[in-house]
Amino acid sequence: MLGSTHGTLTTDSRQARVIACGEQRPGPAVHDRVADLDVSGRPLHADVPDLARFFRPGSVAVIGASDAEGRPNTGITRQLLDWAGRVGARVHPVHPTRGSVFGLPCVPSVARLPEPVDLAVLLVADPLPVIGELADAKARFVVVFASGFAETGQAGAEAQERLAEAARDAGVRLLGPNTNLNAFERFREDLTGPAIALITQSGHQGRPVFALQELGIRLSHWAPTGNEADLETADFLSWFAERPEVGAIACYLEGLKDGRAFLLAADRAARRGVPVVAVKVGRTEAGARTAASHTGKLTGADDVVDAALRQYGVIRVDALDELQDTAALLARARPPRSDGVVVYSISGGTGAHVADLATGAGLRLPTLSAEKQAELHQWIPDYLNVANPVDNGGHPVGDERGRKIIDALLADPAVGVLVCPVTGPFPPLSDRLVRDLADAAEETDKLVCVVWGSPAGTEPAYREVLLGSSRVATFRTVGNCLRAVRAWLDHHRFTGGYRSPFDTAPRTPSPSFRKAEALLRPGARLSEHAAKQLLRAYGIRVPREQLVTSAAAAVRAAGQVGYPVVMKASGARIAHKTELGLVKIGLTSASQVRDAYRELTDIARYEDVGLDGVLVCQMIERGVEMMVGVTHDELFGPTVTAGLGGILVEVLRDTAVRVPPFGEEQARAMLDELRGRALLGGVRGRPPADVDALVEVVLRVQRMALELGSHLAELDINPLMVLDRGQGAVALDALVVCR
Amino acid sequence: MLGSTHGTLTTDSRQARVIACGEQRPGPAVHDRVADLDVSGRPLHADVPDLARFFRPGSVAVIGASDAEGRPNTGITRQLLDWAGRVGARVHPVHPTRGSVFGLPCVPSVARLPEPVDLAVLLVADPLPVIGELADAKARFVVVFASGFAETGQAGAEAQERLAEAARDAGVRLLGPNTNLNAFERFREDLTGPAIALITQSGHQGRPVFALQELGIRLSHWAPTGNEADLETADFLSWFAERPEVGAIACYLEGLKDGRAFLLAADRAARRGVPVVAVKVGRTEAGARTAASHTGKLTGADDVVDAALRQYGVIRVDALDELQDTAALLARARPPRSDGVVVYSISGGTGAHVADLATGAGLRLPTLSAEKQAELHQWIPDYLNVANPVDNGGHPVGDERGRKIIDALLADPAVGVLVCPVTGPFPPLSDRLVRDLADAAEETDKLVCVVWGSPAGTEPAYREVLLGSSRVATFRTVGNCLRAVRAWLDHHRFTGGYRSPFDTAPRTPSPSFRKAEALLRPGARLSEHAAKQLLRAYGIRVPREQLVTSAAAAVRAAGQVGYPVVMKASGARIAHKTELGLVKIGLTSASQVRDAYRELTDIARYEDVGLDGVLVCQMIERGVEMMVGVTHDELFGPTVTAGLGGILVEVLRDTAVRVPPFGEEQARAMLDELRGRALLGGVRGRPPADVDALVEVVLRVQRMALELGSHLAELDINPLMVLDRGQGAVALDALVVCR
Repeated sequence: MLGSTHGTLTTDSRQARVIACGEQRPGPAVHDRVADLDVSGRPLHADVPDLARFFRPGSVAVIGASDAEGRPNTGITRQLLDWAGRVGARVHPVHPTRGSVFGLPCVPSVARLPEPVDLAVLLVADPLPVIGELADAKARFVVVFASGFAETGQAGAEAQERLAEAARDAGVRLLGPNTNLNAFERFREDLTGPAIALITQSGHQGRPVFALQELGIRLSHWAPTGNEADLETADFLSWFAERPEVGAIACYLEGLKDGRAFLLAADRAARRGVPVVAVKVGRTEAGARTAASHTGKLTGADDVVDAALRQYGVIRVDALDELQDTAALLARARPPRSDGVVVYSISGGTGAHVADLATGAGLRLPTLSAEKQAELHQWIPDYLNVANPVDNGGHPVGDERGRKIIDALLADPAVGVLVCPVTGPFPPLSDRLVRDLADAAEETDKLVCVVWGSPAGTEPAYREVLLGSSRVATFRTVGNCLRAVRAWLDHHRFTGGYRSPFDTAPRTPSPSFRKAEALLRPGARLSEHAAKQLLRAYGIRVPREQLVTSAAAAVRAAGQVGYPVVMKASGARIAHKTELGLVKIGLTSASQVRDAYRELTDIARYEDVGLDGVLVCQMIERGVEMMVGVTHDELFGPTVTAGLGGILVEVLRDTAVRVPPFGEEQARAMLDELRGRALLGGVRGRPPADVDALVEVVLRVQRMALELGSHLAELDINPLMVLDRGQGAVALDALVVCR
Repeated sequence: MLGSTHGTLTTDSRQARVIACGEQRPGPAVHDRVADLDVSGRPLHADVPDLARFFRPGSVAVIGASDAEGRPNTGITRQLLDWAGRVGARVHPVHPTRGSVFGLPCVPSVARLPEPVDLAVLLVADPLPVIGELADAKARFVVVFASGFAETGQAGAEAQERLAEAARDAGVRLLGPNTNLNAFERFREDLTGPAIALITQSGHQGRPVFALQELGIRLSHWAPTGNEADLETADFLSWFAERPEVGAIACYLEGLKDGRAFLLAADRAARRGVPVVAVKVGRTEAGARTAASHTGKLTGADDVVDAALRQYGVIRVDALDELQDTAALLARARPPRSDGVVVYSISGGTGAHVADLATGAGLRLPTLSAEKQAELHQWIPDYLNVANPVDNGGHPVGDERGRKIIDALLADPAVGVLVCPVTGPFPPLSDRLVRDLADAAEETDKLVCVVWGSPAGTEPAYREVLLGSSRVATFRTVGNCLRAVRAWLDHHRFTGGYRSPFDTAPRTPSPSFRKAEALLRPGARLSEHAAKQLLRAYGIRVPREQLVTSAAAAVRAAGQVGYPVVMKASGARIAHKTELGLVKIGLTSASQVRDAYRELTDIARYEDVGLDGVLVCQMIERGVEMMVGVTHDELFGPTVTAGLGGILVEVLRDTAVRVPPFGEEQARAMLDELRGRALLGGVRGRPPADVDALVEVVLRVQRMALELGSHLAELDINPLMVLDRGQGAVALDALVVCR
């Protein structure tokens, strides 16, 4: 069953990649399955709501419609009527006292609607009673503009929950509350090609992306999700991901209603190769706090959000201008033919500068072949550098050589992207240059980018030639161009190798779970010894060790464990063992063990640590100290962290995090994110560490996070000593706090 | 003498700060001193060339002038005549065969010029002979456009040196070769207020900054320095820094001709409080290579360049749009009244987002006082957040409340900057909003920034109201706004506390120098023992240790040094001691010392390490392992590096670098740049480390770099064990390679 599902998805994903070229995308092919859950109880699947009749309704009821001069609802009614006219929907104004609104007959109540409607727009101050009246299929969708719900605090959140409940009871899907008219804006109908679909949690923040239509970039939908009492970002994301006209989805997010729902939607987009570009507020504490108070959503720990987005290939950007530029490129550009970038300019300085920035942005600038350089030197003077960056010195772009150079560059198989920065418009040269670039772009399947560097942006070469071309990707800043190109390459690399973790996530507890369950102590912190038993239950290696309660037993244990030994006090209330002197290392004789036992129990008595005995442990000296742990995130539940261990974890905070479920490739990718990754590669003549064993521990800890997540407040293996390659990894210490 | 100079400079710098408000700046007050040198032989002072007659000559000779149809020199001649007309200069065309050029009488040769000229522009293919003819004060300045010099390789570099020599011999200052007409462009004369002066090493790259005039921002000068055979970036920088009309200096740099000359010029700007904003190519190897081939300059190691710029307060930006925006703000904004930033917008989403980005950019957003919030709530509905960010919900900006809110924010002493992002223009609200902001900006000494987020930028509110205001700082992207505001605050903080390191740099060798000189072995690597003696000569503490050549002597030494001891093989060819097994630690008895001696000498025999004996050293276990070293930089000479030591220095490369001379505050700032800085603060219950002792070692190593720099190829103290506070720091190992 799993196998066949996976097979279907692979095919889909291959189709999706072809489709991203801008061809027709077929209808939904990811078959909706019955809801199933992973072992943590979180869904592995989400249905895609059919939102077609929301965006293109056949009939609309405007409840609270008005045409009275000076009333706020009058402007709204007018905009809704305009929009309904454009999409061909019948409109039924509803108002208790008006006979007609803008010439349309008005009914006094929802009960008197002449037909069931696809969409009911509520312009009333108290929407709750009206939602009840919409039951019995009188409406499929309802939009609530009113504010004063979850964004205002606890009472508002409760009112909002009543709204959601009413909608569920009435069998309607609800957008809002605290949303606006953005879905019903006037979209340009004359633009063609793959479009951007937009999701915003603050209408005002979508305005710049909407305004891209002024630059000739098509927008297909705008979903202003407001407080997301019912319909949420994830619903629109997954529905947009299946629309053939959508080339990319742009999001402005302040928080998420449900972390897993979002990931499932992002997974759907990733499977279909549809790029998702998102601003997510909450990089800083201050921003997160303000965002939370704005629409009453959870913002999540930013490093976790960041990791989650990356796991599903969502491209995170910081500012709205980056959202515009990245979404526009990803919506419209065909898949890369090569990741090689050539920088082409009329100035050696510009070429050097942009090549420097491009390399710094992680792009690859291949040196052009000797043959290609010789070909270019037919048209470009010999003393100019054409290895890449290509400096034409200016003059050749003024005549027929200009186009020949561009064609020669685009014909090079090493080149997938041509970036041409026009630092300042100089019409005798730049007008012909951009004309040639626009013409050449029509005849190539490679990406042609122009950076129009003039601050004014009123020049005809920019407004008419560049913005008039749907094939040239035009930017106003080099930084945004390079970031967008990088995102485009990353996107195709990511979706090319994407395998959904939801297909292989465990649904049932492992045999380890029963053993582990018996060890948990709700609300308590486990002793080191008990924590290590929990790890052993999940197949994570711990040192040979024995828990003893007398000096004589300690000596016997040391003999069995093997000298030298480490001895530690073990107890449920022991933290900071080293600082308290509760660890003795390198003990090599029975007498040292006896002394150590006495000293440890003495100290423990003074410190009131709840001693359950003394651990006599095998001493493991050589290896790389790492840490692996589980933390609970408010948005995504239990997450897995890995990083440098020992004292370094505190000082350098060199850690990476992942949201389960994730596969082995993500466990390896985590390690590659560490600044100190090279420590695992073997430094100063040491052999490489057993990275495979470390990855295995990360995956076993993930299993613990999934199976025990709801029972664990905290799990930290630190240090996890990663031995030389082939030797494994051993958890030297562990902290477990149960919920 | 030093004291009085310093006093003068302090006064200057205070004046300069006041002047940066846009008032008249007095004439040069930093008195040129006779050239003096620091102990490394580098100058501590550079004269400012008087470039007034270059930019505003009374008379100009155009050598190679032409008015013949279709000749390249004809266009150039026309531009020069236009420019000369504007600046009021007499023009003398020089051409061997023409009687007149564009109606002006032509002389056949330089010898026949009717008067000495301030400026001679050479439009001839071979400028060298003409320069000779310009001797005897026939010209003050000469400009050479011809290319084909250092940018083409060795032969070109030699030809360039001949040009420079000819200019020196003739007593003229030369701009170029490989420069262009940028200095003679048509500057807008109608713009007022503090101006940007521009220095570029590639003319094309200056175009966007020049184009700022289209947005109403004044440009006073443009120096396209070309190959810098004679006049270099530093000359223009220091001259611009003394012009009263210059508010900021913008630079596009590919390399530097002379690192120290640049630093002296940057120091002059820092003393006078004149902001310098620079793009410096060479963030990546690839970029550095291309830049070097473009104008034949040295690019330098990028981390060193970066540190050097920061030491003198030069604001480094990456791209030209940031150069534009940052230079424009710094040229025009008055000094900050407070570093508190308030974000004000018509949308809670926009406020949350920009507050998040602002905090992430290192800006401080104070929470507004309860009184201020109550005041704001007179005009803003109670349910909106006005703590900062301030969300007005939209409506209040449409009437007289809008201006009241802005004034109330600007009146708050906690607020120094108001940032208003206009995410999308909505004329009914945004037109009045920007009008109110522009009016309020006229009446405040605080900074008012608007981010105009529309991609089109054709709206009247933007083009007329915002660009028409010289008091509102207008940006097109939030990122550039926040970076520029941060740079502006940093600049004033920096210059407020600036003390020139050149005033206190040592001029004569310390007593240590004589002792050290005797230890150097030109071209050789010193043994560990000798290297440590060199450190001791400079007062850097090393462990108690003895160099011994017999087992018996080793035992005696151990007794004197005190057990436990460390023993190491010492020899000139020993590297990677630990990997070779040439270090024995924790020896606690005579017999262990005897065994260790035997083993070390055995291994050393096999490894051919040039053993000069075995070091018996005091064992120092507790402390933080750091490293301090000297590296030679092609641009700046010897530099000082400090960072985490031991194995970490290789893996994490957590180091900071400074270019001498620098003071104690920079030595401390270096440490603050380390990611692992907290290790020095005391972690896991350890006491804080002796940071003062570490700083002292950095300063002593700087002294070594200055005095011995030309004798040292490499100096590395690693590890430097920094003991607990008050206990000092000890160099446990050192590597010294002599030149």
